[in-house]
Amino acid sequence: MKIRSVLSAAVLAVATTLASTQAFAQETFTLKLAETWGPNFPIFGDTTKNFAERVEKMSDGRLKIRIDSANKHKSPLGVFDMVKAGQYDMGHSASYYWKGKVPNTLFFTSMPFGMNAIEQYAWFYHGGGMELMEEVYEPHNMLSFPGGNTGVQMGGWFREEIKSLDDLDGLKMRIPGFQGEVFAEVGVRPTNIAPGELYTALERNTIDAVEWVGPALDLRLGFQQIADYYYTGWHEPATELQFLINKKVWDKLPADLQEIMKVAMRTGSYDMLVHSQHANAEAWATIKEEYPNVQIKQFPKEIFQAMYDANKKLLKEAADEGEQAARIVKSQEEYLEQSRAYTDISERAYLNTMSEVE
Amino acid sequence: MKIRSVLSAAVLAVATTLASTQAFAQETFTLKLAETWGPNFPIFGDTTKNFAERVEKMSDGRLKIRIDSANKHKSPLGVFDMVKAGQYDMGHSASYYWKGKVPNTLFFTSMPFGMNAIEQYAWFYHGGGMELMEEVYEPHNMLSFPGGNTGVQMGGWFREEIKSLDDLDGLKMRIPGFQGEVFAEVGVRPTNIAPGELYTALERNTIDAVEWVGPALDLRLGFQQIADYYYTGWHEPATELQFLINKKVWDKLPADLQEIMKVAMRTGSYDMLVHSQHANAEAWATIKEEYPNVQIKQFPKEIFQAMYDANKKLLKEAADEGEQAARIVKSQEEYLEQSRAYTDISERAYLNTMSEVE
Repeated sequence: MKIRSVLSAAVLAVATTLASTQAFAQETFTLKLAETWGPNFPIFGDTTKNFAERVEKMSDGRLKIRIDSANKHKSPLGVFDMVKAGQYDMGHSASYYWKGKVPNTLFFTSMPFGMNAIEQYAWFYHGGGMELMEEVYEPHNMLSFPGGNTGVQMGGWFREEIKSLDDLDGLKMRIPGFQGEVFAEVGVRPTNIAPGELYTALERNTIDAVEWVGPALDLRLGFQQIADYYYTGWHEPATELQFLINKKVWDKLPADLQEIMKVAMRTGSYDMLVHSQHANAEAWATIKEEYPNVQIKQFPKEIFQAMYDANKKLLKEAADEGEQAARIVKSQEEYLEQSRAYTDISERAYLNTMSEVE
Repeated sequence: MKIRSVLSAAVLAVATTLASTQAFAQETFTLKLAETWGPNFPIFGDTTKNFAERVEKMSDGRLKIRIDSANKHKSPLGVFDMVKAGQYDMGHSASYYWKGKVPNTLFFTSMPFGMNAIEQYAWFYHGGGMELMEEVYEPHNMLSFPGGNTGVQMGGWFREEIKSLDDLDGLKMRIPGFQGEVFAEVGVRPTNIAPGELYTALERNTIDAVEWVGPALDLRLGFQQIADYYYTGWHEPATELQFLINKKVWDKLPADLQEIMKVAMRTGSYDMLVHSQHANAEAWATIKEEYPNVQIKQFPKEIFQAMYDANKKLLKEAADEGEQAARIVKSQEEYLEQSRAYTDISERAYLNTMSEVE
């Protein structure tokens, strides 16, 4: 063997080891995420942006998330199908949008007269909720994780005050999904209208009332200019968004990057609840100052009781549809009962005490 | 040059590059953490364990946290000094324990009649709270991050019912810190007693009442066996623990590990609030079932108003102590006012609605 060959062989052997070490250390992944929201949609969109930033920083650039908003993929309510098909690696949306395709996805966003945000997180993480969600999404080759909470959503903007059940009879209201079905049981005619047309529809009496989210997002749509009555919430007490991930993509990630994703999603979902609290409080202060016409109203007990009974009836019907639905409804009802008994003597008692001192 | 030397030099050069690459990829850190709690202390101790586990997984073993409980370091209330001196790299404790050393650390745990947990997180992350906490801890070469929230703490166990301010006059109660000072203003004689002696002190009437945390942690100490009246909370509506980190140690960590730490601490702190909700609800269900003697009570308005006024007076005195204290008190008061106006029309309204339907 010539000197040169010996040398080359030795260097090559070491260099190969080096190359594979470097390759391992630097292997990078880019996941494409489709979100249901338009570009720069406040709060919801901040959640995916912050998530992507944290994942990239924590992984030292080994894992990047490329976010496509609805303007880009043109399919806000196609996120489930696109992630399932592998057209996108992951999505950011809300589970109850898929009720028409997979009925039991309904239960993982927020239920009327259901758990508040902290109770619902406790159900997800300590009460079996995550396991039930996994069971529902697994046949579709996807994982679903909590993706950000709005807190209690407001009950909506009404142009006339609602004093009795009679006032709801035939009332046209923008309120979608299961929540709309509950309202329908007490006489409301629920409709769904694209966000961009809501203001005009309310102004021209195409609808009499509109439910959106809460002060921060409602303020931008301008309802406070044309409706005086802002009702407190009951129908979505803890709306949780979701991160959806294609299972094949997930399984390809090394364990450290999976953990980075998990922790970044979990923090991001909690963060959105906190961000919502901040932004809603700020927007509510603005509404109070600039729109003295706006009055906060609560439905009379007669209406709440009728809607509460309607909700129970619809949940019973849903549970009768199948064994899985029955288990989920039972799990949520039992968890809520136990959790709320404590919330009542802690959070609720405290907030009521504070409202009495001057 | 001999063949052997040429070969060796070449291999050595490549090997050195390899070694430094490997060293970079595998550089590991172990941080020693001192916690105020005893070994296996529920909920609080789970927070540090989960934090350590996540950090290690996310960093693929490059960052390890070694936790020493109080049994090991023997200095539960020495965490501040030990981390400051670099004897420990980090700590898990509560900011208000350091009030005697650095008065303005008081404000970063929970204040009587103050923000609830979500409002307080919003203040930390969107209302300037983190910046104020940094300002207070920086002169001590430490960083402080939120470290886990208990939610609203219960008002304590009383052996006799409290019907008026007169009943508080001379009443001996275990309640430490600033909260005890507020109680002292309305006639209570606050004392601090080691946890292991609390049950016996209450049983033998050395004290008439005891404040601890909430159902999950109270149940273990057995107060429900000897006190019938369990009062709702007002004095610690959102007790936030803290992670303390020595600044020199922090500065030595690469940016990706710093981000991993930050996100793991943030998730861990939120997680504790959710864990507390779950564990308290479970324990409260047990107390209700097994100890029918226990009654939930709320102080009459006269007492709350007197304590609310006493709290205002003490906060004013604290603010008069210096410019920094005045800024913190103002920041918290203004944030609470704006945030609570929204909490009242969302969370509080919803919980009250739910308490009315049957």
